[in-house]
Amino acid sequence: MSALESLRERLAELADLSSLGRVAAWDQRTMMPPGGAAARAQALGALERLVHARATGDDIGGWLDEIADDGECGDVDRDVVRVARRDWEHRRRVPAELAAARVQAAAEGQAVWQVARAESDFAMFAPALERNVELARDYAACFDHGGHPYDALLADYDYGLTATRVQEVFEPLAQALPPLVAEAAARPAAPDIAVPVETQQAAVLGVLRRLGVRDDQWRVDISPHPFSLAMSPTDLRVTTRYEGAGVESLLAAVHEYGHALYEHQIAPELERTNLGMGTSMSVHESQSKLWENHVARHRAFAPVMAAELAAGGVAVEPDALHALVVRVRPSLIRVEADQVTYPLHIVMRFELELALIEGTLDVADLPTAWNDGMRRLLGIEVPDDARGVLQDIHWAAAYFGYFPSYALGCLIAAQLWERMESELGPQDDALRDADVGPIRAWLGEHVHRHGRRLDTEPLVAEATGRGLDVEPFLRYASASA
Amino acid sequence: MSALESLRERLAELADLSSLGRVAAWDQRTMMPPGGAAARAQALGALERLVHARATGDDIGGWLDEIADDGECGDVDRDVVRVARRDWEHRRRVPAELAAARVQAAAEGQAVWQVARAESDFAMFAPALERNVELARDYAACFDHGGHPYDALLADYDYGLTATRVQEVFEPLAQALPPLVAEAAARPAAPDIAVPVETQQAAVLGVLRRLGVRDDQWRVDISPHPFSLAMSPTDLRVTTRYEGAGVESLLAAVHEYGHALYEHQIAPELERTNLGMGTSMSVHESQSKLWENHVARHRAFAPVMAAELAAGGVAVEPDALHALVVRVRPSLIRVEADQVTYPLHIVMRFELELALIEGTLDVADLPTAWNDGMRRLLGIEVPDDARGVLQDIHWAAAYFGYFPSYALGCLIAAQLWERMESELGPQDDALRDADVGPIRAWLGEHVHRHGRRLDTEPLVAEATGRGLDVEPFLRYASASA
Repeated sequence: MSALESLRERLAELADLSSLGRVAAWDQRTMMPPGGAAARAQALGALERLVHARATGDDIGGWLDEIADDGECGDVDRDVVRVARRDWEHRRRVPAELAAARVQAAAEGQAVWQVARAESDFAMFAPALERNVELARDYAACFDHGGHPYDALLADYDYGLTATRVQEVFEPLAQALPPLVAEAAARPAAPDIAVPVETQQAAVLGVLRRLGVRDDQWRVDISPHPFSLAMSPTDLRVTTRYEGAGVESLLAAVHEYGHALYEHQIAPELERTNLGMGTSMSVHESQSKLWENHVARHRAFAPVMAAELAAGGVAVEPDALHALVVRVRPSLIRVEADQVTYPLHIVMRFELELALIEGTLDVADLPTAWNDGMRRLLGIEVPDDARGVLQDIHWAAAYFGYFPSYALGCLIAAQLWERMESELGPQDDALRDADVGPIRAWLGEHVHRHGRRLDTEPLVAEATGRGLDVEPFLRYASASA
Repeated sequence: MSALESLRERLAELADLSSLGRVAAWDQRTMMPPGGAAARAQALGALERLVHARATGDDIGGWLDEIADDGECGDVDRDVVRVARRDWEHRRRVPAELAAARVQAAAEGQAVWQVARAESDFAMFAPALERNVELARDYAACFDHGGHPYDALLADYDYGLTATRVQEVFEPLAQALPPLVAEAAARPAAPDIAVPVETQQAAVLGVLRRLGVRDDQWRVDISPHPFSLAMSPTDLRVTTRYEGAGVESLLAAVHEYGHALYEHQIAPELERTNLGMGTSMSVHESQSKLWENHVARHRAFAPVMAAELAAGGVAVEPDALHALVVRVRPSLIRVEADQVTYPLHIVMRFELELALIEGTLDVADLPTAWNDGMRRLLGIEVPDDARGVLQDIHWAAAYFGYFPSYALGCLIAAQLWERMESELGPQDDALRDADVGPIRAWLGEHVHRHGRRLDTEPLVAEATGRGLDVEPFLRYASASA
């Protein structure tokens, strides 16, 4: 075997193992009885250790050096090798003891966070958070690139982005959105619509079918936190939850559909390589947000959703349904936020975690900073830490650098939608007929098929002709609020 | 780390990987959309290669040698090390090319078998079968133990058994069962009972709950071929199928429950070692057959099943239900056979595959030998190869040596049941109340907890005071036919 063949074989193995990990994770979150929890955690830990060993071996370095010399590569091969080197070097930078310490601290952090949140007791959580912050700084220090330490954390989720770039992009949001929110909040709120769970379930399946979900390649299940995982490009699993009596289940299902469609439409030639997955968290989120914000919340799509609710036994006026799904109200909980206030929850979290990593904010001062931020950006008072600084798992689990992708996804979705409509024409008529074939095709061509060949900002530039840009989202927010 | 710790760590890793493989296999057979098939096969293949590499490494040999010298072991450790050496030496005996050729030929064999069975065309299948037989002989030749080549094949499913021993045990079956079958077939047959699928489903869940199935550690699902897999001792998955309008689904579910209960009751100290699973195919089958034959087909348990059918909306006389589930009729298809004819299907397959491996039967002559065997043992004519020699996947998939365990399981189940009743007293009253706690406890103590610490015949001897013995099954068959 040539060095390239050896490398590709290892990458295929790693892709296969990763797929098995996703199967186990999907099962864990949808099917597994509680009695399986401890053994599953151990098994996933064992897989992670093995993958780490196989992904960081000296043999990979040898193959990469050999390939660099012989110029046998085609276009895809060149990207395979480029990204393989980047991943290999990246993973090898971190000493095993530090990696293990981070995993350990994150597990302990989550355990104590669950209790602390239930009791709304930030002081109980503070030591674990301090430990996570300290280890995140140690981790960042492994990557000696002369930039901001936060950049190394961002790179795990969005390679190539920097703290400075995120600040540039978020600054106009922090300026422009609060007045929009205040204005919307002053208007009378659209009323809730009561939808029984069975109707929601029927409508979820009906709407997903209209978007192209087929039984031979998809499953739709229930989980406490909606998610999507692709076992392979032709084995796609989305979930939603049926907790309230409204249509959140429908918005969540369409959101997860967007994630899954991304994995579905990656170029087949990238399957079982290191490039055969979505390129970053923010581009992934752009795909879910595009379907959630620009399709499910589109006025022209409301009749489609109303028809599926009617088929499930609940008659709803399309206009009333549309008014409900675009209703804007400042609220305490990120995952329940509407399409306009959502990015403000993120902007605040980014500011806070950046300050934690920089060391300009002490963990002890975090609750006050949080509550100040909610007042400044959303104009609301936080009644307790459970509904404030303790609401998200991310810091407990040491996912520093993850939050920005949620808001960047909203921005990129708006950019892509504008660009797509400028190329295909307005989609109103098509959406009224649930004719989303052209949207799927456009996204496949401009976003999905690339897999990891293009990083976040180059991909946005390729698809839209410009880099990250906040204006399309602000136009969308103004129009929808 | 000491050598023993290193060995145990590797064995835990292998147990974890094996658990992930079971999750993927369970998903494949119950949940996966068809579009996932190709990628899943690749992922499971990658896992298998990795497990092979991790299970045959030189490092294991080094640890084993070190441990042998230092006498640090306790009782369980000694068995861990003994079986680890056995497994390691066993797997290393087979050259990688031969192992790969077997996997390849088995995959091709199954593909051509599916078509050949559908078209009832044995000639189409014959070359693939010849190849599988040839490779099975090559495989057996890797184990130069001076015995029968079939012994090496048996060892993969039932370590320690030999062809000679199986022949000794099967010979009285071939003599005693055919007259019993002929006698039963001459009597009027109990009539079928029509049970709608929804009632079957309700009764399956109801009966399993009576046997101790709880939602926090069990799942009950549907699959085309009923099976059971333990993700861990406290995460148990059984399936059944609802194809006919009778109660086969119920018998199948209780059968699979028996398999799962075995894994559930293995001693916790064996978890994540090489001993933490059922010891052999025949002991595993004895557990499923014990619950199927001796509980579900027990006259005293018929009222329990009837009550669960009634709760599902179908009133059935317990006596009529019992008559149906013990009805004996010679039939063509093994998986549909009753409790008395079933072992005869196996005896014949064992004779045939033994002759194939010995080289005393040519593949070309197999259909004739099959049809002769069915006439001799069951007194029926085989109308075509689809319902004859082509019905099972085993030879297509190169599972030579597997078939005996199905009949041995029936025999061991009868031995265990007799012994258990001699210790606990007759279970009739308890079964009428579905009080199976004492049965579960007895099996846990005498069979389950040992895991792989005892091989098939030593385990049977430990539990019953004697080795494999055909008499209890013959008594059971006479009484039930």
